[in-house]
Amino acid sequence: MNQITQDKPNVLVIGAGGVGVITALSLYVKNECYVSLVVRSDYGHVQKQGYQIDSCDYGKFDNWRPHAIYKSVEEASQSKVFFNYVVVTTKNIPDGPPHSTVPHILEPILKSNSSLSNKWFTNILLVQNGIDIEKDIIETFSKDQFQYTVLSGIQFIGSTKIGSGNIKQIGKDHITVGPFLQSDPDAIKASHAFIQLYDNKGINFVEFDQRVRYNRWKKLLYNAAINTATALVQLDVPRCLEFSKGNDSSTEFQIFIPAMREIVKIAATEGIVLDEQFIEFFTNITRNKMFRPSMCVDVDKGQLMELEVILGNPIRIAKKNGVETPVLSMLYNLLILVQGKLLERNNLIQFDETTCRLAE
Amino acid sequence: MNQITQDKPNVLVIGAGGVGVITALSLYVKNECYVSLVVRSDYGHVQKQGYQIDSCDYGKFDNWRPHAIYKSVEEASQSKVFFNYVVVTTKNIPDGPPHSTVPHILEPILKSNSSLSNKWFTNILLVQNGIDIEKDIIETFSKDQFQYTVLSGIQFIGSTKIGSGNIKQIGKDHITVGPFLQSDPDAIKASHAFIQLYDNKGINFVEFDQRVRYNRWKKLLYNAAINTATALVQLDVPRCLEFSKGNDSSTEFQIFIPAMREIVKIAATEGIVLDEQFIEFFTNITRNKMFRPSMCVDVDKGQLMELEVILGNPIRIAKKNGVETPVLSMLYNLLILVQGKLLERNNLIQFDETTCRLAE
Repeated sequence: MNQITQDKPNVLVIGAGGVGVITALSLYVKNECYVSLVVRSDYGHVQKQGYQIDSCDYGKFDNWRPHAIYKSVEEASQSKVFFNYVVVTTKNIPDGPPHSTVPHILEPILKSNSSLSNKWFTNILLVQNGIDIEKDIIETFSKDQFQYTVLSGIQFIGSTKIGSGNIKQIGKDHITVGPFLQSDPDAIKASHAFIQLYDNKGINFVEFDQRVRYNRWKKLLYNAAINTATALVQLDVPRCLEFSKGNDSSTEFQIFIPAMREIVKIAATEGIVLDEQFIEFFTNITRNKMFRPSMCVDVDKGQLMELEVILGNPIRIAKKNGVETPVLSMLYNLLILVQGKLLERNNLIQFDETTCRLAE
Repeated sequence: MNQITQDKPNVLVIGAGGVGVITALSLYVKNECYVSLVVRSDYGHVQKQGYQIDSCDYGKFDNWRPHAIYKSVEEASQSKVFFNYVVVTTKNIPDGPPHSTVPHILEPILKSNSSLSNKWFTNILLVQNGIDIEKDIIETFSKDQFQYTVLSGIQFIGSTKIGSGNIKQIGKDHITVGPFLQSDPDAIKASHAFIQLYDNKGINFVEFDQRVRYNRWKKLLYNAAINTATALVQLDVPRCLEFSKGNDSSTEFQIFIPAMREIVKIAATEGIVLDEQFIEFFTNITRNKMFRPSMCVDVDKGQLMELEVILGNPIRIAKKNGVETPVLSMLYNLLILVQGKLLERNNLIQFDETTCRLAE
């Protein structure tokens, strides 16, 4: 194992959930790079017997392994391999445990890479939801010290880890990759190069994204308005729409649409014009599908939600730019409490019932 | 059993939960009326062995029984007893099952009473939350056909049914009784007469309520703003307040207080002035108490919430009177979905997952 060299680009995929494993598999199938995967909880299982995969894109595998697996990012950073691409597919939860924030995850690799080469770029691809997710990285790591680019991956895929080392992909992989900084020539080049490594013609769909921020705002129409509301009431989208039929369809007209209009207004203050038609499009996209969006599923599972990158950051931009967001703010203020409940359940905060106060 | 006559007033208590049983006990202890209780689910148990009660007001009882118990209101209505007072302690859920709405519950007694006497009043005392709860009764039953008054009971009590026929009262009984229609001399008289039947000096606290609507709006400050929000996020009040500390205490300043201010504004359009100090009072009243308000407990138990009388009615009054209620409406629109979830769980609505529509 780990017999990988630098004769082809090296890609490190961080996050071995439904998305991360199929991402690693896609790169492996294309066979133009070495693929390393950080596998945390399933490490022993995967080391012994590899992955069992049932993929609508690639078929069935009984004991698939990437070129290398690592127990942790730290271990990967000690491998003496320069990782040209670091693909982050973990959830982005800045308010979660400090060791799991994206800058913290990236630090060992940026350091080891910079000790191995001062001419190659570390190209960081964030396959994650939300807006402003590149900012923490740019603020944490100096470009003088570390030579890196930050790329955006906006992915649509239906893939779930259904057991230890067991992945089921039911929705085809569709991903757009592009530079967070639209004018950065190194990031543009790295995006195109990654697409070349990832593109399995006729199987997956991968495309260059010329307007990352526009597309992230666009995806937020759904995520900030609909994903959030379903998480709060713990219902799939069709039930949310149907249960308010007797109240003048208030879910649609008093929650989803007004919340999306607020996103349109915030984006507009950045010069990004989101067409009104998207509001109708996203209202209807899951009307007839028994779909529980990601934040709703997180609450189901007792996991932290990506609340800050999906809702906190847009609201902070709105405040800075003087946009009123009554609906989004109400969703946010209520979801802060749900996130608090999840933080407490995961022992990340303690509440003292005798004093009725958070413990320090 | 049922050896009751008309030599003393007859009181029928409907609803044999923690509140209803202590209400019946209070009347029984005072011993100036005959007390009948409608006991539904616990009927067999109570008929056989009576109630086991542990009351902070009245002490311990091993097999207490009121003067009569009935399996249903229909059965009570066939007893040939004229009930001078009908005390309704059930939850008020107009959007619940049709047979459990208050007019439906009252109908058999109003009919039997009117067939027994055309000179006595049926005095209906609603010991229930919310605003405009008398309206359905007044609209349903003609005063020409049925001679009745509607009285308001606003109760503060900590009493719970902890098992079949087993009641534990930990918070002292405090109730105000008065006429919904402030100028109705019959209702005023009936209120005072009921207080006489109920008042156990030095034990419970019962008082005439001269300003029923004012006091109902006042209690709504807490119930419409705080009870509702806790139900939505499924957390006790102190956790709701504490979990938003890092977000500028948004629970207090962006949810509770703005919601209460909206109630103040709506009440003002009816000429009812709620002092600003109550907002601070109610914000703090359960800050240091591990308290889950009633709607939150309903969701815990999978029971329908009193959403319409606590939040729907105030919002309808606001709409009629041209008051904007962005915060209350958002809470309402979200809680409509939670209520829908509870309606589905209780088989009161059906959702077809193949069509993604409510079944007719």
